[in-house]
Amino acid sequence: MTTDIDSRDKYRHFLAIPTRWMDNDIYGHVNNVVYYSYFDTVINEYLIAEGGFDIHGATVIGVAVETMCKFRKSLAFPQIVDAGLRVGKLGNSSVRYEVGLFAAGDPEPAATGHFVHVFVERATMKPVAIPGPLRACMERLLTA
Amino acid sequence: MTTDIDSRDKYRHFLAIPTRWMDNDIYGHVNNVVYYSYFDTVINEYLIAEGGFDIHGATVIGVAVETMCKFRKSLAFPQIVDAGLRVGKLGNSSVRYEVGLFAAGDPEPAATGHFVHVFVERATMKPVAIPGPLRACMERLLTA
Amino acid sequence: MTTDIDSRDKYRHFLAIPTRWMDNDIYGHVNNVVYYSYFDTVINEYLIAEGGFDIHGATVIGVAVETMCKFRKSLAFPQIVDAGLRVGKLGNSSVRYEVGLFAAGDPEPAATGHFVHVFVERATMKPVAIPGPLRACMERLLTA
Amino acid sequence: MTTDIDSRDKYRHFLAIPTRWMDNDIYGHVNNVVYYSYFDTVINEYLIAEGGFDIHGATVIGVAVETMCKFRKSLAFPQIVDAGLRVGKLGNSSVRYEVGLFAAGDPEPAATGHFVHVFVERATMKPVAIPGPLRACMERLLTA
Repeated sequence: MTTDIDSRDKYRHFLAIPTRWMDNDIYGHVNNVVYYSYFDTVINEYLIAEGGFDIHGATVIGVAVETMCKFRKSLAFPQIVDAGLRVGKLGNSSVRYEVGLFAAGDPEPAATGHFVHVFVERATMKPVAIPGPLRACMERLLTA
Repeated sequence: MTTDIDSRDKYRHFLAIPTRWMDNDIYGHVNNVVYYSYFDTVINEYLIAEGGFDIHGATVIGVAVETMCKFRKSLAFPQIVDAGLRVGKLGNSSVRYEVGLFAAGDPEPAATGHFVHVFVERATMKPVAIPGPLRACMERLLTA
Repeated sequence: MTTDIDSRDKYRHFLAIPTRWMDNDIYGHVNNVVYYSYFDTVINEYLIAEGGFDIHGATVIGVAVETMCKFRKSLAFPQIVDAGLRVGKLGNSSVRYEVGLFAAGDPEPAATGHFVHVFVERATMKPVAIPGPLRACMERLLTA
Repeated sequence: MTTDIDSRDKYRHFLAIPTRWMDNDIYGHVNNVVYYSYFDTVINEYLIAEGGFDIHGATVIGVAVETMCKFRKSLAFPQIVDAGLRVGKLGNSSVRYEVGLFAAGDPEPAATGHFVHVFVERATMKPVAIPGPLRACMERLLTA
């Protein structure tokens, strides 16, 4: 079920995200909802560290318009999750990130998915061009 | 952007889900991740209330294999969310739920998406047929 | 263990808060952390509805400086929690709320605790007097 | 406001816990509720790693009966939190952990608090003696 396109070497940036006790649900595994918190953590951490994104003062912000996740293997606290990130599509005001979540030491993803940001002017919520420094760091994650 | 298929009358079951203070993120709106907690709340509440699903003792459980959400309008605490539920596809061991989230009083959805459950034997995690009482309540939500 | 002071009639305001699927932890009960999300939901909902608190534009905001909870009985999804609120102490810039969480239909609390807000000017984070409309609604919850 | 008793060297075990995007609330800082998820993460991680605690199969489990937190400084994504742990009191069936949360690089705590676990037989929820391997690892964190 896992194809080449999902292997670790297909992602351009990684962030180690430790699970938390309350991530586990009644069945003893990380709840499906929580996977998406790993998605927006790896994405925003990258934009902040590499694109200088200022989440407190930014006048242009990214708004999620679509997210999706395929769950392949379970994860559980206290595992550490390696979140892999790449950019699949980069438009004028929108970007499609692709994320792979891997249990530490596992070459196959526990989950894969995507997350689409549209950048808007915060005051009006109207779409605008992705600011230069953010676009530059996104381009470095683009895959053919 | 919203089509007929997403209007309130296309959903067969509704649950009112009040937002919580911490659902709001730094931008003052419900964080994208939290929408999925509304998804699995409306689904599991329905299975428990209508299908007699016993989350503590069940030997057959539903495991999420794919979820998706399109975000159309923002939601914010202290709004109440009406979560609409229907079944788009019902297989032997899997079911695809379709969910629409509406701000109270709004005919158009703030978000729409789907959630696919595969039912497995809890002890082995192997897929099994959806138990009868659960299947019966899912059939009542099937849309043509 | 539960004394008079914790009975339902000792609280002045109530909000029904439905549990969510992911509130349950690996042991099948609402995780201890989540109780505090019920605390700040009943408090902020009250300040918004009764004190006209504008969480998006307010220049004076309440910051949590101390919270505490005693857990007496377990709660579990899909129960509905009745969150009771009163004010135990009202100072110039700070307020101590007392919260009781009751399973629907249960006269005894599942949990009791407190939450102390200090009001600060958002721009400087310096303590200021509690704004009049907020103070007025807090006074209505004061217990002798 | 911070006394000697809260400095880093008063804690016996540390875990680095990275913040997540959704930990930030509408005011741009980690929400008060989330601090408690750091508490039960550092505690359970320690019991698992040092005491061999098996969260999936354990017949004796720790149940939270009281938690408290004093918030001294704000934290914000993407900071990393150093969670310090010690044991303040160790009884036959209960243990009081004391936790200090420090922003990476800061000698003073952003928050301090406690968490009391009572150990119970999972099947009956009756208190029992803390199992030997857990008690042994707790003793190593005891402070005079």
